Amino acid sequence: MTAMNVGAANREALERLCRARPAWTAVRPAREAIGLSGRTLLHAGPPIEWKRMCWPMRGAVRAAALFEGWVRSAEEADALAAAGEITFAPCASHGAVGPMAGIISPETPVLVVEDRVNGTSACSFIADGPWGHQLRFGAHGPETLAGLAWVRDVAAPAFATVLEREGPIDLASLMAQALSMGDEMHMRNAAATGLLARRLAAPLVAAAPNAAELEKILRFVTRDNDQFFLAWSMCAAKAAARAIEDLPGSTVVSTMARNGIEFGIRVAGLGERWFTGPASVVDGLYFPGFTAADANRDTGDSAIMETYGLGGMAMAASPAVQKIVGAKSFADAVQTTRDMGEICVGGNPLFPIAPLGGDGTPTAIDIRKVVQTGIVPRINTAIAHAKASRMIGAGIATPPSGPFVDALVAFGERHPG
Amino acid sequence: MTAMNVGAANREALERLCRARPAWTAVRPAREAIGLSGRTLLHAGPPIEWKRMCWPMRGAVRAAALFEGWVRSAEEADALAAAGEITFAPCASHGAVGPMAGIISPETPVLVVEDRVNGTSACSFIADGPWGHQLRFGAHGPETLAGLAWVRDVAAPAFATVLEREGPIDLASLMAQALSMGDEMHMRNAAATGLLARRLAAPLVAAAPNAAELEKILRFVTRDNDQFFLAWSMCAAKAAARAIEDLPGSTVVSTMARNGIEFGIRVAGLGERWFTGPASVVDGLYFPGFTAADANRDTGDSAIMETYGLGGMAMAASPAVQKIVGAKSFADAVQTTRDMGEICVGGNPLFPIAPLGGDGTPTAIDIRKVVQTGIVPRINTAIAHAKASRMIGAGIATPPSGPFVDALVAFGERHPG
Repeated sequence: MTAMNVGAANREALERLCRARPAWTAVRPAREAIGLSGRTLLHAGPPIEWKRMCWPMRGAVRAAALFEGWVRSAEEADALAAAGEITFAPCASHGAVGPMAGIISPETPVLVVEDRVNGTSACSFIADGPWGHQLRFGAHGPETLAGLAWVRDVAAPAFATVLEREGPIDLASLMAQALSMGDEMHMRNAAATGLLARRLAAPLVAAAPNAAELEKILRFVTRDNDQFFLAWSMCAAKAAARAIEDLPGSTVVSTMARNGIEFGIRVAGLGERWFTGPASVVDGLYFPGFTAADANRDTGDSAIMETYGLGGMAMAASPAVQKIVGAKSFADAVQTTRDMGEICVGGNPLFPIAPLGGDGTPTAIDIRKVVQTGIVPRINTAIAHAKASRMIGAGIATPPSGPFVDALVAFGERHPG
Repeated sequence: MTAMNVGAANREALERLCRARPAWTAVRPAREAIGLSGRTLLHAGPPIEWKRMCWPMRGAVRAAALFEGWVRSAEEADALAAAGEITFAPCASHGAVGPMAGIISPETPVLVVEDRVNGTSACSFIADGPWGHQLRFGAHGPETLAGLAWVRDVAAPAFATVLEREGPIDLASLMAQALSMGDEMHMRNAAATGLLARRLAAPLVAAAPNAAELEKILRFVTRDNDQFFLAWSMCAAKAAARAIEDLPGSTVVSTMARNGIEFGIRVAGLGERWFTGPASVVDGLYFPGFTAADANRDTGDSAIMETYGLGGMAMAASPAVQKIVGAKSFADAVQTTRDMGEICVGGNPLFPIAPLGGDGTPTAIDIRKVVQTGIVPRINTAIAHAKASRMIGAGIATPPSGPFVDALVAFGERHPG
């Protein structure tokens, strides 16, 4: 394989990522949308077995097992998992993405996002319900289960009805607008959440079962959670990235994901194979009362945002996210995006950054450039408590370089000469 | 009056503008909120009598006279006005602001915005209804009147109920957030509209009379009008500016407004007195099928945004508005804001602009600096058709320098030595 051929494959990868126009088309149970059956759970990050899972992921497994009715207590869930009675697989390998612990079970209602340009689709669970105590952070108490049931029984059907009546919602243009409004779409989705709320509010009136539930749904969609849109942005990014999950000859990263123990990547030209290293400790800002000593290691499929050229890659577009993740200054954010440009194939014209003269966000991470420059992708991320089922801050994860080096070696072995 | 004393008065003006924290507190008829009675109409810009009014303002007078039930036809409205049976006064002199023609009649429901820091308040009419054909552009047909009646009978009471139940809505923090999301708050209010929609959507459920009207109200608030928030931003800016409407010794501009014929300013140290010159032809981008030959001259009270340090003063904060008003580039927008800094007393820390290192938007226009530098405030604005009751574009108005020179001469006469 010559460098010229790799260059052409990588340009094709960039082109596919840039031309993607993901749209939200449906809400369906994971059973239907992803084809999950039996006692199967999808999780965030590279493959991992029950006994090696971090505490937040184990908590989320408990929540899912209770939600599915497979067990009646957390202890029964642990026993079921330990007995090998639950099949685990990465979301990433099933066209899905899960934030933080990222557990998706068959009855979980998922967003379905389709990109008709590349002919791909992707799914993610919507959210955990309006009462906090989120499954994604390992919560599995009564409030969490009530929230999951409410999303399944009330919010998800209402969203599905809106889509049936209104048709697909164009996420590409919505995200392009939100980026110009200061979202980097990973740790800041405030503008996108507002734009989605504006799309959904009026049609939800006829789609909700009654006024009390309508008010609850509207509150869920519009209030107190600037990150509500994250599930949509992750789905859109995954739908785009699926177009390069099997692109022979390309050294572009198709997946970056963490399971709380390991960070892993997959590469377009190497298909399903994972390259992993230890998940990093996130360098972040902690909520009052918490420190790095309380933190779980980096976790979640949300690094799909950086895989798609947003999040940490797009820091220069989002002055507001700097305060959330602890970046130093606007100049520092601009420098980060310039650095990310060093390891990417090109820019995405869908996401021009005004302070960079309208250059598109750096897109299509080339493992050759990562290895040559020593610059690794910068990932903006939330920080989970290691054992207390909650978010305790946000920051910047610097993934290990090992997986990029290993992947390049494997690529060389597969493409000698 | 020494220059040192003027400097102190101007710093006080800046301080008052910067410390203002306007909040939306109520919705009431102009009759109650402004004390309008009898056949009185407020209009945009400096004082003007019926026979000199431009066509859009005459159209809006017809709409208001019909809405109030004073007349039964446009012809009757013209006759009533021509007979001197309608009292006209500027919004600006009654603590109010009106976009474009800016006609406010006694039964018009108005937003009430209060700034408890400076102890001021301001009002503006909400909007013309959900069907286009806006009074502000001179429309006065059945759709316009139906829209005004619907706002009066349905939307305004629902908003009032939300405020009674939820308490005041802090517009200062909402606008600060919106500015960081690319709104300059005059010709771009997309982010602010989304933030307001997120605040209102859920509580409107219990405040609307029924599901059909709720859906219509939500559509009105959330869909198809990125400028919905403009009435709120104008009210907030007016509430702030009222704190300097009578500030002895200050050469800071307290009002900039246009009536479609004349551009006028008032100055903090000169109270109610107006200084006027011909309203300019707006340099803008026209909707397809329209040219500058179709345009009315610059009109409306919305230049209160620039008076408060937003709009054209804040171009660097709003890459997106450049395309709306026809600015050349991001660099050009940054330069505009730097130029505006040359004629202002200081920056408003409530509105930091990230690409300018976090400097606040240029605030408190000093007529001395305008005259010294020859730089006039740059006003972003919508363009009204001269005779067809509609918006036909948007652009940048460059007001005449005469009123600033005249005001400085008057200031010198009042403060000799």
